[in-house]
This record gives sequence, structure tokens and C-alpha cells, in this order.
Amino acid sequence: MRISELSAKSGVAIPTIKYYLREGMLHQGEQTAATRAEYDETHLRRLRLIRALLEVGRLSVASIKTVVAAVEDESLPTHQMLGTAHYALSPAVEPEPGEEWQAARAEVDALIESLGWDITPAAPTRDELAQTLVRMRQLGVPVDLTPYVEVARKLVSEVEMDLIPFHGPRDAAVEALVLGTVLYGRALDTLRRMAQESESARRLSPRPGGSE
Amino acid sequence: MRISELSAKSGVAIPTIKYYLREGMLHQGEQTAATRAEYDETHLRRLRLIRALLEVGRLSVASIKTVVAAVEDESLPTHQMLGTAHYALSPAVEPEPGEEWQAARAEVDALIESLGWDITPAAPTRDELAQTLVRMRQLGVPVDLTPYVEVARKLVSEVEMDLIPFHGPRDAAVEALVLGTVLYGRALDTLRRMAQESESARRLSPRPGGSE
Repeated sequence: MRISELSAKSGVAIPTIKYYLREGMLHQGEQTAATRAEYDETHLRRLRLIRALLEVGRLSVASIKTVVAAVEDESLPTHQMLGTAHYALSPAVEPEPGEEWQAARAEVDALIESLGWDITPAAPTRDELAQTLVRMRQLGVPVDLTPYVEVARKLVSEVEMDLIPFHGPRDAAVEALVLGTVLYGRALDTLRRMAQESESARRLSPRPGGSE
Repeated sequence: MRISELSAKSGVAIPTIKYYLREGMLHQGEQTAATRAEYDETHLRRLRLIRALLEVGRLSVASIKTVVAAVEDESLPTHQMLGTAHYALSPAVEPEPGEEWQAARAEVDALIESLGWDITPAAPTRDELAQTLVRMRQLGVPVDLTPYVEVARKLVSEVEMDLIPFHGPRDAAVEALVLGTVLYGRALDTLRRMAQESESARRLSPRPGGSE
């Protein structure tokens, strides 16, 4: 297809497509004449991935380049490639000086160890969870992650990972991981606040006989 | 206690405390001399609540004033007061023109109805979830909220609502709701990404005989 059709099908404007081509985020099309190139499904798939990372993952262009480089590096096993995208989704967390932080971080590492979870030492999620624990302690929130660990484990192993096309095109696997992680993360957060409203109503507004 | 002690105990600087007093977000202390006022536990509790809304809930000062007004309006039942804080935590969502939005919003309303959840027609969570559904459909993510509904319901009814001191001071109930909602929301999101990394490693890096 021509660039105009690629633009129409992907919903990405032609100048933006040209920018991605120049930046090496999108591979060149097949040159069929001096000013004409032919694009195919692989270009469409890459544009879908870039849109997902940009609009849903809220990644910077620099982070998207890192993810795209991992997708293109065929020597990188699928798990590492997915990890690159996954880590790019983590908010930046600065370790804080002091014993409070050290203790929380050690607690996170011990939790992962005790669960037998296979998570790299460099995973940004370790500091992310440590920061939340520090904040809970500082603000006097009782800390018990047990039910949340159980819920995360169950959701991921029984539902979410089945939606990733691990053995299809690499672009498609990363796209599914990012969209699923972010969009179902949002849905879960909203549903949790809905359930809280409903449960609070139930506990605080007893209706005689349970009728309207 | 004097304002200096209130500042030390709450971790809020004296000029900030004076700002809250001027803005009516903190009730006046008992005037014991022309330039001297006495503060007590209720002031400390209010400052804790304001910090929680500001630093953890990321609310604007205007939103915090609305929540504080609900806390102070003793004629407002606890459930409504909590609802005010809860709704202030929802991100602002603009309904989008078009049938796609209408359909998603109708779907959300039907879901709530079918679950028998007690959620006001004006709850911002309705539009919030509708927006996520629209995004999922536009990006080709398969939509099935069932496992997430189940998880939210279970977490909230079996764990989270037991942590809210519904019958203590109104400030304390709102503080616990906001801190629990936001901080455990973050923890759950991080744990979910951790579980994904681990499950992806398990599925993609088979170890001979399952040993190290």
C-alpha cells in the first residue's frame, strides 16, 4: 500500500509517519520509484504498537525507541523483549535515603523470594512497591499485602497471560501486553472504587427489610 | 497545644497551618490571649486528613475544601460524606460525542444494574469505566470485565471496608478511605505487573525438569 493508505488505515497522519521513518521507529517501505514506496502489514502493526505505547502507555518518544529496538532485536528472547516494554510502563521512582526505605525494600525482596516469583533484581517494580510501603507506614495505614498478592497472582495466571499472543509477531505481543496491562489496570481501579461505594452504601444505609 | 507543637506533631509548616486557618479548611483554635491560641487533637486529625488528600490523593485545594466542607456538615450522613471524598479521587473524564460512547455508557449502567451495586446515577466512575471500554474497543482489546468485577467485589467486601472506622471521628473515616483507596490501588497495580513478569518468565523460559 502507499503511504496515504497506510495513514488512513492506521489513523496516523502522514507527517507523523515520515517522522517515525526518519527516527528509525518504523522500518522503511520498499522503494518502487524515486518518490514512491510500498508499505505492508508489518508497517501497520508497528504503527499500532507505537500508538498503543504513546496514547495508552503514555510513554515518551525516547522510551518508545527503546521498546521498538527490543522488538527489532530478534536475538532478544520474547520474555526479555516483553520485559523492556513492561519496565517502560513503571513510573520513575527515586529510592529515598534512610533506614525506612532500606527496610521497605528488603521487605519487598523477601516477599518476592517467599512467593517464588521470577523477577529480575533490576525490576523497577521493586522500588515502586517499596515506595508505597514507606508511604503507608509514614501515614499509619495498616500494611497487609496478602489479599492483593493473591488477587494479582490469580488474575495474571488465570486470565491475563492467556491474552498475550506469545508466539505471533513480536509487535503484536508487546502491543497486547501494554494495552492489557494499562487498560485493564484502569478498569480494575474504577471497579474497585465502584465496589467501595456500593459496599459503603450497604453498610451505612440499612433499608428496612432490604426493600427499596 | 501551641501552633508550634501542632506544626511539629503534624509535620505541616506554621505558615501553611495559618493558610489553612484563613481559608477555613482548619477550624480556629481556642483564643487564650490576643496573639495566642490553643489547639487540640481535632486540629491534628484535620491536618492529617488534609495531608492525605493533598499528597496521596493529589487533590487540588479547591477539591480539598469541598471534602472538608462535607466532613464538617454534620447533617450529611457518613455515606454521603465518604462519597464526596471518593468522587474527588476520580480523574476528570469528558463524555465523548458519538454512538460508541453512548453504547459503552449504557453497557456500564447495565453492568451496575445486573450486579445490584448501589451506585448513584451521578457517580463519576460510570463515565470513567465507559471511557476505558471505548478505548479497549477502538484498540481491539477483547472486553471481558467479569474476572475484574469479581476481584473488586471480593477485595472490597472482605478486606477493604473493614479498615474504615465508620463510627469514629468523621475526619479519620475519610482519611482511612482515601489512603486505603489510593495506596492499596498503587500496591495492587505494582503487584499485578510483578506477577505478569513472573508468569511470563515461567511460560517462556522453560527450565529442564523445572529445576534451577
